[in-house]
Amino acid sequence: MPFAEAISRDGTLAAGTPASLPALAAPELAADLARAGEEGFVLRTLPLAGRRTTVVAANRDVGVLYGVFALLRRLQTAQPIDALASVESPRVRLRVLDHWDNLNRTVERGYAGFSLWDWHKLPGYLDPRYTDYARANASLGVNGAVLTNVNANATSLTAEYLAKAAALAGVFRPYGIRVYLTARFSAPVEIGGLKTADPLDPAVGAWWRGKADEIYRAIPDFGGFLVKANSEGQPGPQDYGRSHADGANLLADAVAPHGGVVMWRAFVYSHETPQDRAKQAYEEFQPQDGRFRPNVLVQVKNGPIDFQPREPFHPLFGAMPKTPLMLELQVTQEYLGFATHLVFLGPLFEEALRADTHARGAGSLVSRVVDGTLDGHALSGMAGVANVGSDRNWCGSVFACANWYAFGRLAWNPGLDSRTVADEWTRMTFGNDEALVRPVVAMMLGSREAAVDYMTPLGLHHLMAEGHHYGPGPWVDSASRADWNSVYYHRADATGIGFDRSASGSNAVAQYFPALAEVYGDVRRVPEPLLLFFHHVPWDQRLASGRTLWEELVRHYYGGVEAVRGMQATWRGLEDRVDLERYAQVGAFLAIQEQEARWWRDACVLYFQTFSRRPIPPGLERPDHDLAYYRALRSRYVPGN
Amino acid sequence: MPFAEAISRDGTLAAGTPASLPALAAPELAADLARAGEEGFVLRTLPLAGRRTTVVAANRDVGVLYGVFALLRRLQTAQPIDALASVESPRVRLRVLDHWDNLNRTVERGYAGFSLWDWHKLPGYLDPRYTDYARANASLGVNGAVLTNVNANATSLTAEYLAKAAALAGVFRPYGIRVYLTARFSAPVEIGGLKTADPLDPAVGAWWRGKADEIYRAIPDFGGFLVKANSEGQPGPQDYGRSHADGANLLADAVAPHGGVVMWRAFVYSHETPQDRAKQAYEEFQPQDGRFRPNVLVQVKNGPIDFQPREPFHPLFGAMPKTPLMLELQVTQEYLGFATHLVFLGPLFEEALRADTHARGAGSLVSRVVDGTLDGHALSGMAGVANVGSDRNWCGSVFACANWYAFGRLAWNPGLDSRTVADEWTRMTFGNDEALVRPVVAMMLGSREAAVDYMTPLGLHHLMAEGHHYGPGPWVDSASRADWNSVYYHRADATGIGFDRSASGSNAVAQYFPALAEVYGDVRRVPEPLLLFFHHVPWDQRLASGRTLWEELVRHYYGGVEAVRGMQATWRGLEDRVDLERYAQVGAFLAIQEQEARWWRDACVLYFQTFSRRPIPPGLERPDHDLAYYRALRSRYVPGN
Repeated sequence: MPFAEAISRDGTLAAGTPASLPALAAPELAADLARAGEEGFVLRTLPLAGRRTTVVAANRDVGVLYGVFALLRRLQTAQPIDALASVESPRVRLRVLDHWDNLNRTVERGYAGFSLWDWHKLPGYLDPRYTDYARANASLGVNGAVLTNVNANATSLTAEYLAKAAALAGVFRPYGIRVYLTARFSAPVEIGGLKTADPLDPAVGAWWRGKADEIYRAIPDFGGFLVKANSEGQPGPQDYGRSHADGANLLADAVAPHGGVVMWRAFVYSHETPQDRAKQAYEEFQPQDGRFRPNVLVQVKNGPIDFQPREPFHPLFGAMPKTPLMLELQVTQEYLGFATHLVFLGPLFEEALRADTHARGAGSLVSRVVDGTLDGHALSGMAGVANVGSDRNWCGSVFACANWYAFGRLAWNPGLDSRTVADEWTRMTFGNDEALVRPVVAMMLGSREAAVDYMTPLGLHHLMAEGHHYGPGPWVDSASRADWNSVYYHRADATGIGFDRSASGSNAVAQYFPALAEVYGDVRRVPEPLLLFFHHVPWDQRLASGRTLWEELVRHYYGGVEAVRGMQATWRGLEDRVDLERYAQVGAFLAIQEQEARWWRDACVLYFQTFSRRPIPPGLERPDHDLAYYRALRSRYVPGN
Repeated sequence: MPFAEAISRDGTLAAGTPASLPALAAPELAADLARAGEEGFVLRTLPLAGRRTTVVAANRDVGVLYGVFALLRRLQTAQPIDALASVESPRVRLRVLDHWDNLNRTVERGYAGFSLWDWHKLPGYLDPRYTDYARANASLGVNGAVLTNVNANATSLTAEYLAKAAALAGVFRPYGIRVYLTARFSAPVEIGGLKTADPLDPAVGAWWRGKADEIYRAIPDFGGFLVKANSEGQPGPQDYGRSHADGANLLADAVAPHGGVVMWRAFVYSHETPQDRAKQAYEEFQPQDGRFRPNVLVQVKNGPIDFQPREPFHPLFGAMPKTPLMLELQVTQEYLGFATHLVFLGPLFEEALRADTHARGAGSLVSRVVDGTLDGHALSGMAGVANVGSDRNWCGSVFACANWYAFGRLAWNPGLDSRTVADEWTRMTFGNDEALVRPVVAMMLGSREAAVDYMTPLGLHHLMAEGHHYGPGPWVDSASRADWNSVYYHRADATGIGFDRSASGSNAVAQYFPALAEVYGDVRRVPEPLLLFFHHVPWDQRLASGRTLWEELVRHYYGGVEAVRGMQATWRGLEDRVDLERYAQVGAFLAIQEQEARWWRDACVLYFQTFSRRPIPPGLERPDHDLAYYRALRSRYVPGN
């Protein structure tokens, strides 16, 4: 492909900005460029300088980069490019990967080897994978990376480590990616030599301002801080009797002069056992709406518990109209089988984004809260807890990469549907052979429901083993906090199963807007996939299918395993259409998934049977072992823990 | 290349055993095959079936494999193959890599990422790298792998983990590699439910026999156990008042019926502070010579301290004629700059192997102790503490791979010289461009002495920072054991520096045979590179150069840094001859090495200057910082710790 500085013949591809390529200042492109905005791009087929030209135009270099990747995506997915006429720009401003990476290269909830960041060799050595990572992110539209774990280490804010972060920022910068760090709230004490980290203490404010100045000297385009405070043992403003807003504003004031933001997590729960953990974030944060600085985003997980296979959307969405709410999704599969389970998260992300909060009447989708359009916020963001690591395939498995892809694409455009995303990814990963694309996309789209079925069907949640979260642990009842126990969540007893969050129970439903609270609060109207999240239901209650709850529960657990077997059959049918290495790895992982799906099914059904006292319906295969066997299993050296 | 079942035309390459390829049963090959033995091979150019044939023949498949790799090596190093007439067989029977890999995938003293073994996904998933690892090892002649850390975890002996080890053994088997495990001496208590691990308790013996039977059911060609006992806090027979021989024989009896061996480490030191740590292994083990079962090897590090940049050879070599002594070398660069320092260990290994013990008069080389010829042992072995890990380049850096290579080649043939090894490796790694091979080989051959110079010249040893061993720490004086302190080893004071191990001191020299004890014990005759290992020498003592000890010490430290700068210059001259990625990585690492060499030099010279009270000679660059700066440095999150 010859390169040229000007358009001199038909069939030219012209990529650039009006400033870098004057032909792109043509009046025919002006309106499109105006719509493209800061990060967007224009793809057009049109005559320029009298020649038939394919244009990738943008107002800034990063837009050109995104546009080129969009063009490559069309090429790779075998779409026509002979009559391009599109303008695209991201609906969400901050599209960020959160790395829960520790300075010793372990990754909390990481299942793809270890951290990409080789802190020890930084800044002296810049691993080429840093560049590859940035390029991959840019191809998805991701424009930020929080380098460090939310369970933060003040060492990452020392001069020594800022030099290392600055080296990464230097690699990422050409790809439009800003670096963020997690701020340990007690850093002024731990590395600053102060006696307090009280956010209202002037010396503390001065320390953070000085630290921010130091960071921006090293990283002029530093994005800002992500903070987990007063949650799971992390320090925070409440240690000093101050509010979350006090804490967030302290840091916000430090980075504001430099254009930085603070992403303050709403994933909090107090040390006292709450009446209902699902209610706590709302109770702590909703009253503070309006008290945050303009450069603070409150970062809210998709659901009120913790990245479960299925939860309702978080009731904070729509409930804090004066505050930009950043959606936090988990790309790494902490509760979804780690890297060895093929679970495409597109449908989960889509379900969260399309949930209707009814905050301003019907159509008040979570996606519109997140992109800022519902409440008129210019600042908006989506965060994905990263699943990338040192593994050669980046994400621990071939199909886990689809989740990185899905996060990026949906952060760029929260209106995309997961079928489109799966189709794109499959074509770019395995080629355009329709006999492969069709079954693979179908398998991906069904995979999340399969995981829900073999793990936590019908609104069950938080049934995993303690600590490492590997495998089933519905019997867990001795954790140090009540709400770390499975029994706290499923509440199975002789009469039935489920957490009554209706008016007769914790009344968590009241945190939703009335139109929804009515539906969720009514056992006859609540969507069946959320049934046991909101209600304690008798074992013999008839569901829509006509089957009893017990029969339906068992049917879901068995159906989940059957769905995995279906994926195995699908994959076996593709042997001739996939290269040997990926074929073998996916096949081996599906076999592990089938084994672990049976583990989940058998452990949960046998355990819940001790309450229901009802049989496993005839015709279904018997569990491989008895309940005592499953309860006695102890997994050791589990990754990500 | 067409394949055929018989020799039917000129130019055929015939590879196989007489059993697999009857043409190789020809009488012309019989004598060579007899010499080749169990693992060896014959490379011959000769007429077979009337056709000009290149023969790779062996008695067993593994010999064919080794022979094919030998032929490939000749091809890759551009040696003629038109008149082959060689028979090769390994001089050492067990050629083993010791992996200090933990079950959570961290690697003790590992600087190449994390463990290759993904225990969590085993046995369900067999990473293709397991195969690549086995093939790479086979190409060097390595025939064993101890999968687990010598600081052992009894969990690795549970049924769950044996299934995982068996899966690895299945991958390695076709490459002639046997799997070994480390045995935690207290395993009968920890996983066996016994009240004691006393080696003389019959129930303990029965437990180990049962465990061995279980292992061999899972891994029929299991190699045996490697044991670190009663050293650095590990449990062992001395906990029960028994001897090392009692402990080793316990395990040896368990694996003997299956043909297994026990590799029992002599790297021990008692909890009581010894008079001289260098003497302790000899004192504990030498008297037990003759008390070990025939399937026990006592595994001895190359030197009496601990894998230092330079030590004299270990006095146990030659001193236990009734016991096969296995040489333990460290391939991973714990004390030699980790993965970022270019230090080719061939010369270090060669120095150890060629040391003359004088056990049976002159010529009683360590290599002849190790290969069993000096004392007539059929069982023999060499172990290398592995430097491979999850990094894409296997060993953390391009040049660190040369150390893996050197270990394998020297274990196959301890008589090889390191120049040959460096030349082979360079040609196979970078090609046969003489303008590259010559300077690279020269750089490699000088690199170990450079490291000695900038770290521990003139016989100094154990000056590194505490715990993680990253960077200099000559001032370390507060470790919990006397012999974990640097000051214990260098003994610098106002009069001079060095550890007096002559008759006037600890008399460690007396552990060597008289011819050598005399030389080492005499400050005028001891080789200068070992001067301060054996003697405390006045600062103003004149050395062979005519310079004082202080001047010479400083000269070595500065010379080490200059040598690294020389390597940088050499490498810069090769920019056009090396691919971009490796050129950049090696260049970045050399820059780190130069920086850290200066760190070592300045810290040590400034620190020793507080005793010598003598100036850094004029004309030399001044240290970058003062001593207080270096003493205040704290390295955190250091790999391998």
